[in-house]
Amino acid sequence: MAEKTNLQREDFSKWYIQTIQKADLMDYSPVRGCMIFKPDGYEIWEHIQEEFNRRFKEEGIRNAYFPMLIPESFFTKEADHIEGFAPELPWVTEAAGEKLEERLALRPTSETMIGTAFSNWINSYRDLPYEINQWANVFRWEKKTLPFLRTSEFLWQEGHTAHADEEDARRRTMKMLEVYKEVVEGVLAVPVYEGQKTPSERFAGAVDTYSIEAMMKDGKAVQAGTSHYMGTKFAEAFDIKYLTKENEHVYAHTTSWGVSTRLIGSLIMTHGDEKGLVLPPKVAPTQVVLIPVGPWKKNPAILEKLEELQKELKAAGLRVKIDDTDNSPGFKFNEWELRGVPMRIECGPRDLENNQVMTKMRDLDEKVAVGFDVLVDTILSELDKMQVRMLETARAMRASNEYTNIDTLDELKAHIEAKREAGEVPGWVLVGWDGTEESEAKIKEETGFTTRNIPFNAPVKKEKCIVTGKPAVHTVWIARAY
Amino acid sequence: MAEKTNLQREDFSKWYIQTIQKADLMDYSPVRGCMIFKPDGYEIWEHIQEEFNRRFKEEGIRNAYFPMLIPESFFTKEADHIEGFAPELPWVTEAAGEKLEERLALRPTSETMIGTAFSNWINSYRDLPYEINQWANVFRWEKKTLPFLRTSEFLWQEGHTAHADEEDARRRTMKMLEVYKEVVEGVLAVPVYEGQKTPSERFAGAVDTYSIEAMMKDGKAVQAGTSHYMGTKFAEAFDIKYLTKENEHVYAHTTSWGVSTRLIGSLIMTHGDEKGLVLPPKVAPTQVVLIPVGPWKKNPAILEKLEELQKELKAAGLRVKIDDTDNSPGFKFNEWELRGVPMRIECGPRDLENNQVMTKMRDLDEKVAVGFDVLVDTILSELDKMQVRMLETARAMRASNEYTNIDTLDELKAHIEAKREAGEVPGWVLVGWDGTEESEAKIKEETGFTTRNIPFNAPVKKEKCIVTGKPAVHTVWIARAY
Repeated sequence: MAEKTNLQREDFSKWYIQTIQKADLMDYSPVRGCMIFKPDGYEIWEHIQEEFNRRFKEEGIRNAYFPMLIPESFFTKEADHIEGFAPELPWVTEAAGEKLEERLALRPTSETMIGTAFSNWINSYRDLPYEINQWANVFRWEKKTLPFLRTSEFLWQEGHTAHADEEDARRRTMKMLEVYKEVVEGVLAVPVYEGQKTPSERFAGAVDTYSIEAMMKDGKAVQAGTSHYMGTKFAEAFDIKYLTKENEHVYAHTTSWGVSTRLIGSLIMTHGDEKGLVLPPKVAPTQVVLIPVGPWKKNPAILEKLEELQKELKAAGLRVKIDDTDNSPGFKFNEWELRGVPMRIECGPRDLENNQVMTKMRDLDEKVAVGFDVLVDTILSELDKMQVRMLETARAMRASNEYTNIDTLDELKAHIEAKREAGEVPGWVLVGWDGTEESEAKIKEETGFTTRNIPFNAPVKKEKCIVTGKPAVHTVWIARAY
Repeated sequence: MAEKTNLQREDFSKWYIQTIQKADLMDYSPVRGCMIFKPDGYEIWEHIQEEFNRRFKEEGIRNAYFPMLIPESFFTKEADHIEGFAPELPWVTEAAGEKLEERLALRPTSETMIGTAFSNWINSYRDLPYEINQWANVFRWEKKTLPFLRTSEFLWQEGHTAHADEEDARRRTMKMLEVYKEVVEGVLAVPVYEGQKTPSERFAGAVDTYSIEAMMKDGKAVQAGTSHYMGTKFAEAFDIKYLTKENEHVYAHTTSWGVSTRLIGSLIMTHGDEKGLVLPPKVAPTQVVLIPVGPWKKNPAILEKLEELQKELKAAGLRVKIDDTDNSPGFKFNEWELRGVPMRIECGPRDLENNQVMTKMRDLDEKVAVGFDVLVDTILSELDKMQVRMLETARAMRASNEYTNIDTLDELKAHIEAKREAGEVPGWVLVGWDGTEESEAKIKEETGFTTRNIPFNAPVKKEKCIVTGKPAVHTVWIARAY
């Protein structure tokens, strides 16, 4: 990050890995594909959890916890589900010195376990909707891993609901997608496109999968959250039936939806710059850092003043640190910028004389003097403004990497090649698609781009399929993806 | 619970299992020894987590998350540790269709994983103390299981700290024991004895293990929390060294400490009665239930009044429900008593006329009329009083089952037999112990009692060993234990 060259532009992956390690968010572990969430990394996750838990509660969804180990026979009950997950499962085969009669999978997701429970718990229409959420560790034995974005063990929430009919289940599916968008944009300041996944990108066993998709600074896409309508497929596989008012036994309609610790990776890749992290105030472990400058040790009033300020800010609900170490101010500025702390406040002898401090927002260049008389209010409002500004900045970054005027595969290949030569990112391309798996596969094969989603609100409607030239059935975002 | 006989006294285990299932706290799962935490059961855990997280933060301890899978070679580094845990470990031996080169254990505890990380992270005295906590699922393949108290997978927190010297590490060990006592007594209203475990009951690999021990209503003991001083044993095994101010490389001193979801089982077995759960207000998922009575449907003002009250109580930070189902008042009263809701409020036409409600605390028999003008304040203060009263009641229960005047094994056997014949619980016995493993083993062999801990503040000091009659080295609580 301290390099004079722009590592972020030249080698985004290297920049990412260096930044998250230097900023002390994570460490590698000796277990293949598994990472350690260090305190600053984990605290971001805790703030994300708080934001979701509050909204889940408002939706009447309660948390629960289900066993992590799933008997092999559970998976085989829903054919598409086992087909999708089997290649990635780790298995427990021995315990307490004995070989197990049946292998137990480390959960990749809990539809099968929770479906079995729902089958026991749901009897009558009075029990519906039955709506729960679980915060848990899950496992998918990935070949290629990347911290936060793709690891063999990761943390997530998985919501599971059962409903009397399709309408209510679809309402829940769409509502959770909205909640995801609200948090990812409003809290993480990461703009997303809501839309539907194509059949080939659906969750294993779902009738319909919806996603929010975010663009990283290298133009690649991250699927930031998904919400699935299962129809009665899992209800049939796990016998989730209920008695209607009319005394009939019918299958429930189920949904599931999840976001994971990959959100942490997404916000870093959306906001980070060559100096390090830029954290949205709402999730930053430290929101404000107070740094005494000049000959502050000879002037104890400076530190006293900062300690008083820290107390006031904490009382206002902020997370604040004072850096009174022996390091130089320059070292400290770099360190806290690397860590992405949203706001820095400096106070030296002359500031104190003038009854003011110097403030610096992580995402702006200039320093601003602020008087002590309005300081707490100014800090609060500047953090609010930064939260909003970060989303706007990310929207502008995204807009500059969106392409909607590419109509053929040849044009797409030329576009990718031209961007590569210019050292720029190919970004996302909005294309027409004839709805066939063949066309989708051909895009991937020839360009490495995959369908992200069919956005609900596409900027333009594309008339012809980019592959076949036939009338487009859908307008779809395509991009390279994490 | 509705039986006329007192199931709790006659068959405590059956009472416990029935109560936690009927009160909807848990369900069994199809996976051997693993349970499902249903929403009310899990929410108790969430409140316990909040209480601990706040205190950990005040102590400067931060949360982190480490991989769940631990390579076999890690365990073998500390001989006592592997010896203690090996018999209970489940192993992952295959993943993604391939046999693993090295077996991976599902963590029973994370000293080995976190010790490896500490070895990388700790370099200088400036890095010390290094203090973190992890909330996680852990696995111990138990032969005999009991929901909440002993399951193959359970949830817990495990704190791990590294210090420059023994003094600081011991200070942390003892401080966390205090924090545990404060929460278990102050929040769960479960009185405990703090003390030191005997060498045979130490954590595998610890130099000293301290515990808080609680008495259940059946007189059996639950180890409710433990805190361990590891000396430099783990530091030596995992190479956790630091550079002192004097430029010497020396081993750090480490600690670990944990409480688990067995706290939920403990509070149920401490407070529950023949009607069901009795939950301490601080952790109850529903603290107050509002029930309209009499011909309330003809009188809409009743429900309106209760809805208004609910709003006020929520604004005051309480968790409140209205039961406006069609069930009879008697059914509702039983249901909410079974679920252990601390306070019930009834309002019927005559109450409304008199501008009052009837209130009933879960742990008291009488109903009390309270005027609307003082209602919110009264509810808040009655819940506070109940919280304190529950601890007093539990202390009284405990006191009535403590025996300090038993001096020989024959007296102990006679005591146990007499209690059995009277249909009473044998409780805990405070005995002198000569400090030998032989004497400890003999107590267990002949009576089934095990040493709980050597209390810091024993009610009396015992002079002679209950087994050998030799001078006692320690005064120790013994009891049957979960």
